[in-house]
Order: sequence, then structure tokens, then C-alpha cells
Amino acid sequence: MPINQLRRNPINGRWTIVLMDQLNLSNLTVKEKKKASGVSSCPFCEGNEKMTPPEIMALRSEGFGMNESGWRIRVIPDKNPVLQIYGDLNNRGFGMYDVLDGIGAHEIVIESPKHTETFVDLSEDRITEIFWTYRERILDLKEDSRFRYVLVHKNYGEAVGPTSEHSYSFIIASPITPKRVKDELINSRAYYDYKERCLLCDIIRQELTDQDRVVLEDGKFIALTPFASSRPFEVWIMPQKHEPFFELTADLRPLAKMTKELLVRIHTLLNEPDYIMAIHSGPNIKAGRRRGYWQSLERDYHWHLEIMPRLRAYTSFEASSGFPINSVPPEKAAALLREIGA
Amino acid sequence: MPINQLRRNPINGRWTIVLMDQLNLSNLTVKEKKKASGVSSCPFCEGNEKMTPPEIMALRSEGFGMNESGWRIRVIPDKNPVLQIYGDLNNRGFGMYDVLDGIGAHEIVIESPKHTETFVDLSEDRITEIFWTYRERILDLKEDSRFRYVLVHKNYGEAVGPTSEHSYSFIIASPITPKRVKDELINSRAYYDYKERCLLCDIIRQELTDQDRVVLEDGKFIALTPFASSRPFEVWIMPQKHEPFFELTADLRPLAKMTKELLVRIHTLLNEPDYIMAIHSGPNIKAGRRRGYWQSLERDYHWHLEIMPRLRAYTSFEASSGFPINSVPPEKAAALLREIGA
Repeated sequence: MPINQLRRNPINGRWTIVLMDQLNLSNLTVKEKKKASGVSSCPFCEGNEKMTPPEIMALRSEGFGMNESGWRIRVIPDKNPVLQIYGDLNNRGFGMYDVLDGIGAHEIVIESPKHTETFVDLSEDRITEIFWTYRERILDLKEDSRFRYVLVHKNYGEAVGPTSEHSYSFIIASPITPKRVKDELINSRAYYDYKERCLLCDIIRQELTDQDRVVLEDGKFIALTPFASSRPFEVWIMPQKHEPFFELTADLRPLAKMTKELLVRIHTLLNEPDYIMAIHSGPNIKAGRRRGYWQSLERDYHWHLEIMPRLRAYTSFEASSGFPINSVPPEKAAALLREIGA
Repeated sequence: MPINQLRRNPINGRWTIVLMDQLNLSNLTVKEKKKASGVSSCPFCEGNEKMTPPEIMALRSEGFGMNESGWRIRVIPDKNPVLQIYGDLNNRGFGMYDVLDGIGAHEIVIESPKHTETFVDLSEDRITEIFWTYRERILDLKEDSRFRYVLVHKNYGEAVGPTSEHSYSFIIASPITPKRVKDELINSRAYYDYKERCLLCDIIRQELTDQDRVVLEDGKFIALTPFASSRPFEVWIMPQKHEPFFELTADLRPLAKMTKELLVRIHTLLNEPDYIMAIHSGPNIKAGRRRGYWQSLERDYHWHLEIMPRLRAYTSFEASSGFPINSVPPEKAAALLREIGA
């Protein structure tokens, strides 16, 4: 099977993962449908460990072996990875274009042994363990200097097929920093160069003064609806003290507590919407880049966790312009999220 | 009613249009459904001219007056514009944030007097007239120095409500250049600064040599699947000679011919998919910006028309990373689009 390619579009700077051997027109044109399913056919359920590739790590009670039952969290490689773990990047030109082989990691964190237990149902302890698992996997993948970035994200409500009801998240290591994170790195750097202060540290100070967009705050973390939220009820959680890397954050329990609290409120207020959760941490300092780049990164980037309810698809206007339209002012979203907890 | 706001997110540089007075949670959480409807309730149909705001322009047979029937194309303001035409931008800071009032234009080009005639059904003559109408509106809106950009786009298959079957496109004038176009301007400028050649002119030369991604070519325009297409069957049409502005392109008939030909092939191959069509022209040289900026823009930007079939929604991975996954290599897409015409 040919290796997938990462290709860069020179006019917009975006990299796309091009799957080189998956042409099936009927798959493309038939709309996907959600199918609920039972425990028996779900490879993510306890007891079905043999249905998945061998696990990468797991949190398991004593007395059970690897790839057996008795686990609370289990990390496995994706069966059909878009990026494959073996091989060189083969960074090369194709005439005037740039191409890399699709090398990377594509892992699944199964968040519960039970089929229908959702992330928001989990206890603070369990969510803390999930965040701890993210940290372990990020630290391990960042040992590999081929990977510039490790992205952790989960979605609720989107998946299809036999695992559609089972709660899980993705960890993707890629040889390119995703554009969305790169834009943040560039703007944080420009702000630091001008102000000699971290952008998100300044935002936190202003938001604590204004209070209008603050949802939760406990002295360690703050949850707020960004001033220019691109979607209704978008919320960011970040450490109040400057910290560039999620995986170097010592105390994950208050983060777990705040994340659960927020998701409970979003579920209640918006009638259990689909949502995306993503962690934007700093990139891998072991991968390439010129001397001195990373030292300044540690001053100017500030990690955060983004929660984005998906209440409707992007319109053609938004898709063709890259101009999001948000029908709920973030001040109103924050007020509603504060009230519903009271 | 409060004026909508354009707000800039300092960490990713994106501007979002925030609607300041539309909070209706039930609208947000109920999934929209398509409703087919008849001619009688469709404000875009011939005979129902009184159901729309007064027209901005129309192409009409002799003997009929404004806002009467007898038209082939009709341009009206949107009834519920996200950007309003009257007022000042009030470019201002809000603490560390940037805000503009939501000033702009939001117009609808009704492409046919008949309810169910689709864009692809229209004759070359009629499509030429639609492109000519775009040109007239862009030229007029660019007289207004508040508007940095005028975006023309249409979608097929997305709309809901009584106008859902009627064919139309949007013209949006905005005080900010949309991020997607701005990224293109920046990369085209950087390429020109390095090479002293236009990026798209170079791409056209390479693609004509390779041939693998060329779908159609007539000496005036070329249609190709971009090397790093972010979606399956994405196609760009552009003038083969360097031209920064769509609205200054003299001969629109070969463009209409090629666009129709391409859309017919896409409809046949992919079973009439939803699609987006957008024209990326240079920004408004009458709006702000420093001396000398526009002269070099004319050297380095090259307008193009993008056609993007919407075969599935973005996944959470794509949404949280900005890393599109394209399951059809552009070489295969181009080959299929060439073959189906043969």
C-alpha cells in the first residue's frame, strides 16, 4: 500500500494529509449514518481486548496482564492510521511543491471499559487519570524527534460504527505543527516581541478584571469564553500561571474538576450537544528548528484546553471566507454558564 | 437593535462576526431540517418581487420596470444581513482586544426567475450574465472605502427554508479581508519577494508540464485540482495570464463555459453533490493600507475561482488541528474528471 502524503499548499500555507490508496466513490457520496451497537461487537469494551491491536499502555488493577480485562483506561494504536509510525519523513520537493511521507502516530485512548459511560459521567478521579494518560503519551511521543507536534483531542457525538457509543479520545503525533496551533505560536511570539509579556497571561489579567467572560476560576485554572469566540459557547480552560506545556503541568486534578464541571453545565444548558475538546500544548522541542527558538517559545506560549460545542455545521460563507459567524455573544454565553451552576 | 461586532482573536488572528442580539437557545440546539417548498411562498420566484427588499440591480427584458417581473437575474439586499450597510466602522480597542462595528454589505444574486432551475442547468449565456453581474456589484462595492474585501460565493444544497430550492449566490463586502484570502495574499507576497514571479503563474506552468492535475485548459483559463487539495475533487479555475482582479477580467464567456463544463462533470461523477463555489479576487485598493502596498499586490496576487464539493463534514481531528484529510489524491480526481467528459 502506498504511504500517505503530507502536502503543502503554497498559496495558503496549509498542509493536507492525502490518503493515497482509498478511492471509493460510493463511500464518498453516501452520507454516513449513525448506528448504535451493543457491547458484543464493540472492540473498545472490556472483554473484547483481542479485537484491537496490542495496547500501548493501560491503567489496570493488580492481578491482570497486558491486553486482558481489569483496566480503567487503555491506549491502543488506531487500526487504520492516517499517519504510520515506521519510516522516514523523506522531506522533499516535487517541482515547486513540498511533500513529506505521512509518518506519525495515531493512538486511541479508551476512557472507560463500559460501553455507554460518557466522559462527563466519569468521576474527578477517572478524568484525572485520563489527563495523566495524555501526559504520559505526550512525553513518550515527544522523545521521537520526527514529530513536531502531539495533538490530543476528543469528540463527543460524531463517531459512527460499532464504537460510536464508546467514549474515547485521539492522540496524534505529526511531523508538522497543525496550522491552528502554528497561528497561535506566531501570534504569541509577535505579542511577546512587542510587549515582552505572554499574550494569554495578559488576557487572563484583563478577563479577571472585566469578569464578563469568566465562567469558573479557582486560583489555579480559569475557564472563559474568548472575547472573539468563533462558535457559540466556546470555552477555554488554562492555567493561571504561565506554563507552555500541558505535559509539564504538575497538578492535573483541579483541571479535571473544572473540565467536568464545565461539561456538566454545557450538557445541561444545551441539551447534551456534540462537542470537540482539544489540548493545545507547545510543540516538541526535540524536533528540528533553529537554536534559540525554543527558549523564547517557553516565554511566549501558554497551553490551554479548548471546548467547542458543535451546534451546527459551518455555512458556505464561513467555509469560503474563513470568517466565522457566532450567534451568541461570549458575554451572554459566560453568564448562562455561570447561572446554570448556581 | 445593537450593531453586530467584528472581533479579532489575538491568539489566532481570526476575526469573527458576533451577532449581538440573536440569543435563542432552542434555535441553536434543534437541528435544522430541509423543507422543500413551492413557488407560491418563495420570495426569489418571478411574480413574488414584492416579498423581497427593493432590488439593487437586475437584468430585465424591455417593457418591465424595477421590482417587476420579466427579469433573468436580480440582486437584492439580504433581509437579515449579518453586516449592515449604514454607519462607521468605529475601529477601536477594548482593553487589549480589537473591535469593529459590523458594517458591510450582504447581497443576494438570484440566478434564475424559476424555482427549480439550478446553476448547472443554465446556459453559457446565462452563466456569463451571472459573472457579469458579480463584476458590476464588486466594482460598485469597491467604490466604498470602508470595505477592504468583496467576497462572492454560492452554495448548492445547503440552504433551508422556502428559498432552499431556488438558485442564488451571495456577495459580501466586509471591512476586513477574510483570513482565507489574507493567507493567500501573504504567501503570494512572500513568494514574489523571493522569486520575483507570481506564485499562481508558476503553478500554472508546472501543472501544464506535469498534466496530472489539469482537468480543462483552453488557452485563456485552466481548471486544475490543486496539488495539496484539502477536500476530494476540489477544483480551481484561473486565468492563464496574470490577473489580480476578477472584476477587471475582460472576457467572462470562456470562464462561464469552463465553469459549467466542470460542474456538469462533478454532478455526473459524484451524483449531484452539495458544493461551494467562491471567487478569490484581490482586495479593495481604495480601502486604507500603506502607499506602495497595492502596486506590489498587482504583481503578486492572481485571482481564481474555487469549487469545493462537500462530500462529508469536517471531522473533529480536522476541526481541532486545522489539518485537513483528503481521501482522494488530486491526480486521481483530475483523471476521473477528465475521463467523464470523454
